[in-house]
Amino acid sequence: MSELTTARLSVYLRCLESLDASGVNTVSSQGLATQFQLNAAQIRKDLAHFGEFGIRGVGYYVKDLKRHLRQILGLDRSIKVVIIGAGNLGVALADYAGFRLDGFDVVALLDTAREKVGQYSRSGVPIRHARELERLVEREKIDIAVVTVPPDAAQETVDGVVAAGIRAILNFSPVSPRVPPHVKLKNMDLTITFESLSFFLANGHVDP
Amino acid sequence: MSELTTARLSVYLRCLESLDASGVNTVSSQGLATQFQLNAAQIRKDLAHFGEFGIRGVGYYVKDLKRHLRQILGLDRSIKVVIIGAGNLGVALADYAGFRLDGFDVVALLDTAREKVGQYSRSGVPIRHARELERLVEREKIDIAVVTVPPDAAQETVDGVVAAGIRAILNFSPVSPRVPPHVKLKNMDLTITFESLSFFLANGHVDP
Repeated sequence: MSELTTARLSVYLRCLESLDASGVNTVSSQGLATQFQLNAAQIRKDLAHFGEFGIRGVGYYVKDLKRHLRQILGLDRSIKVVIIGAGNLGVALADYAGFRLDGFDVVALLDTAREKVGQYSRSGVPIRHARELERLVEREKIDIAVVTVPPDAAQETVDGVVAAGIRAILNFSPVSPRVPPHVKLKNMDLTITFESLSFFLANGHVDP
Repeated sequence: MSELTTARLSVYLRCLESLDASGVNTVSSQGLATQFQLNAAQIRKDLAHFGEFGIRGVGYYVKDLKRHLRQILGLDRSIKVVIIGAGNLGVALADYAGFRLDGFDVVALLDTAREKVGQYSRSGVPIRHARELERLVEREKIDIAVVTVPPDAAQETVDGVVAAGIRAILNFSPVSPRVPPHVKLKNMDLTITFESLSFFLANGHVDP
């Protein structure tokens, strides 16, 4: 399974949630494709990986396929998240997840700054001292660590996260820390993102 | 040019900056590949798109190639950025860019909340009223708009940005606004990112 396929499954889930919220019961791959500017053959191929979900002459049952996709994406249980670094970005991510991510539970923000420890984010995520990481992972069975510390602290932070037993890390520091092969590290590199827009402005101008 | 190629050019630039900072004068594609875990043939292919930069028996002059890459990526001039939405995420991005992005100049954060207007981010970016967008774009020749408003305000905000004449948008709202074909919109979808980690945890477990 490539990351691209996983990303498409997320998109399909968004579409199905939207249809379900509008009271739609069944939809064909062609219907999904037309409504959400997707590719019908691609939808069928992506879903066929995981079993037979469509019914001839009917298409997909929206609620069923939604439930299947949540299960495939591992969202059929609550995913516990800890965010390390309670700066603006850490707090913003805590509230983003708290307010908007269905199925993700941000258990705590961790920081070493004494004046932050004991505070709460707007969505109610508590800020605790970074030294509580191991105890927290053990007690709360944390699934994902989000790292928003400064670049010079990133490798040490990631080492601590791995040592605590976490296997999935989302890193926002502008460096790419090393992790052992059993750990999944996803870098959100904002520099690359900004530079790709700059490249477009320099080279991609399409005169109408 | 695919987005992947652009992303690789950004990575090469990071590597060359690191070599330059260490006082390295020349490097071969193989040397780059070995030091930074890249693919030598891919490096040569990516760079060949833009001309002949390597010299037989020498490799690349680090400073020259760095300068060429900055030019290719459109970074040979200052890129002006405005961030719309001065919540935690907007302010975090302003300081990220202000402190860490070489060549990007965050001119202002825009918001409609009266108590925020007139304040400054830690890196010194002023918060102004959102109604100043058009004037700002005109006077400052803004290149990129970063949108961090709530989902229900995203389309309206993006419409205003496009109407003001901006052609490159980085959207952090968890919706995908529509833009005309001459505008480049990049969605940073955090939901998809979190769900890909959840998928890994549910399916990608590799027992050592």
